[in-house]
Amino acid sequence: MTDFLRRRQAVADTVATAGHSFLLVTDLKNVRYLTGFSGSNAALLLDTSGDVTVATDGRYDTQVRQQTAGTPGVDIRITRDLLGELRDVAGSGTFAIEPGLSVADARELGDPPILTGAVEAARLVKDDAELDALREAGRLADTVFTEFIAAGGIREGITEIEAAADLEHRLRAAGADGLSFDTILASGVNGAKPHAGVSRDVIVPGLVTVDFGVWLDGYASDQTRTVCVGEPDELSRELYDLVHRSFSAGVEAVRPGAGLFDVDKVCRDIIADAGYGEYFVHSTGHGVGLDVHEAPYAASRTPRDKTLAESMTLTIEPGVYLPGRTGLRIENTYIVTAQGAESVNPSSTALQVV
Amino acid sequence: MTDFLRRRQAVADTVATAGHSFLLVTDLKNVRYLTGFSGSNAALLLDTSGDVTVATDGRYDTQVRQQTAGTPGVDIRITRDLLGELRDVAGSGTFAIEPGLSVADARELGDPPILTGAVEAARLVKDDAELDALREAGRLADTVFTEFIAAGGIREGITEIEAAADLEHRLRAAGADGLSFDTILASGVNGAKPHAGVSRDVIVPGLVTVDFGVWLDGYASDQTRTVCVGEPDELSRELYDLVHRSFSAGVEAVRPGAGLFDVDKVCRDIIADAGYGEYFVHSTGHGVGLDVHEAPYAASRTPRDKTLAESMTLTIEPGVYLPGRTGLRIENTYIVTAQGAESVNPSSTALQVV
Repeated sequence: MTDFLRRRQAVADTVATAGHSFLLVTDLKNVRYLTGFSGSNAALLLDTSGDVTVATDGRYDTQVRQQTAGTPGVDIRITRDLLGELRDVAGSGTFAIEPGLSVADARELGDPPILTGAVEAARLVKDDAELDALREAGRLADTVFTEFIAAGGIREGITEIEAAADLEHRLRAAGADGLSFDTILASGVNGAKPHAGVSRDVIVPGLVTVDFGVWLDGYASDQTRTVCVGEPDELSRELYDLVHRSFSAGVEAVRPGAGLFDVDKVCRDIIADAGYGEYFVHSTGHGVGLDVHEAPYAASRTPRDKTLAESMTLTIEPGVYLPGRTGLRIENTYIVTAQGAESVNPSSTALQVV
Repeated sequence: MTDFLRRRQAVADTVATAGHSFLLVTDLKNVRYLTGFSGSNAALLLDTSGDVTVATDGRYDTQVRQQTAGTPGVDIRITRDLLGELRDVAGSGTFAIEPGLSVADARELGDPPILTGAVEAARLVKDDAELDALREAGRLADTVFTEFIAAGGIREGITEIEAAADLEHRLRAAGADGLSFDTILASGVNGAKPHAGVSRDVIVPGLVTVDFGVWLDGYASDQTRTVCVGEPDELSRELYDLVHRSFSAGVEAVRPGAGLFDVDKVCRDIIADAGYGEYFVHSTGHGVGLDVHEAPYAASRTPRDKTLAESMTLTIEPGVYLPGRTGLRIENTYIVTAQGAESVNPSSTALQVV
């Protein structure tokens, strides 16, 4: 059975168990997950046998047929009124909608019941094709970053945006389909803002945090390295060592059955015990797949019964941010294996002086 | 009165006329339009006097205060439950929601009435600050593209992705905040697909279509140039001349009061009269602003009573695509002025041989 058939069957079972005849899937990543079709205007109706009707517009006529040719049970409708067409396919059968559908579309469809997380639950555990795609994306980004640093990509006197443009160009030239999120490249006091972005400020001696990722064949990479321009001062050294200890402990905690709350707590406690707890202002990790941020989540408010399973993904990304001074973060994306955590970003996380 | 106060007052009048006490604004571009706040997690409640309560989370505490500091009438709430907080602010007052709110959030809020297009109607006609931002974005992209071509950025033997990476790097290094959409750079038969993207194929002699844009200070640019690698053959020359005549006629038709259906028809008729009507498979134009595709739209199905007004924006972008052979598109973004159309992309649209 192909991956797509297996995925559709898993979701179809959920739909049947919930008592619906169909699920109307409007999240584009979910459409891609179930069919392989990656067009920007698409919706599908999944029945309880796992067959799907895929609706898109004329721009994607060729593409949708090519991308879905590998599996049976796919009916294609080319139309301007995607949702109206699929409602007609459902006929008198009851169909559920996804929670993210717009309220205007839901009312137009007669306010059907919502079925939450049916596709997302299947996406949580990656199949082999997905794991390979994630490894490829992670390795590409990691390899390019290593070359970028070796080539002096981060140095005193150039602007953050010049350095980021260089890195992004290298990622694209290496074959990335795009950037999976807006690059963060933050020097000096900008490093104290966890969502700094890239400014026109000149890079100064001290820590520089670089959070970056690519799209490759539909899957995302997500990774952060912090380097030091010139020798680190005492504070930078202390903070880096602290975040690195937190990071390493988090990675050690990743294994099938581990609690996601506990993974976060392991990282958070180390930083809190050192007196910097209030400066670790975000959660420890998230899944990576067709979305760059997706379930599971490891955070201080994650329910205690949520656990990791083999072939889930999780980033480990503790950080410390001292407002007006400096900050840093270290992050890899991991695949949960029977043995523990496999990093898709193989380069060293030790502090590099550039 | 500042731009933000004027914008909020215009929307507040619409809300009052519709009989609501408040409008809950959840579209992030609309939040930015009304307040200047550009965070990725935000919502606001606008009352009928134009005052707003802006809700966001702790990551944006500093940023939201900085970006909204210029105008009175802004109350800020830092919270994890944005919509719950704003519902409480509304209290017993009736509030409307935007059509794009998710059905799950709408039901959580008790299924309030929808008010469609209140902010979008205000955004349709740009104020001076917006026009300046659009001119800056358009000029940056246009200038960089001219340099890219002069530097031999498109040539036989390199891949489409290498050429696109070079262009994108130049855009970023020139100060673009990001790309406003996925670049299209299509050579050979790829040019016959209007939404080709960028492939790993090697650039071959003939037409190469490049559709690209940037974000600058929140506003988009959108522009397409088609160049020819080597001297054009007879078909390429014929198609380019045809599309260029269509394009020029469309630009001539842009003025206050012009019908949007008619602008499309002027372009479409020229291509149809030459026998290529079935190969012009998309609409003629769209507005550009905080979104790269926004109202107004010039298409064959645009209602006949929709007209242009001064300080609206519109792209003119006819194209012809011969499946399996070649294709091209020419596009500029225009500001509607009292005199007609002002291009924000000043470079020549004549066929360039590279």
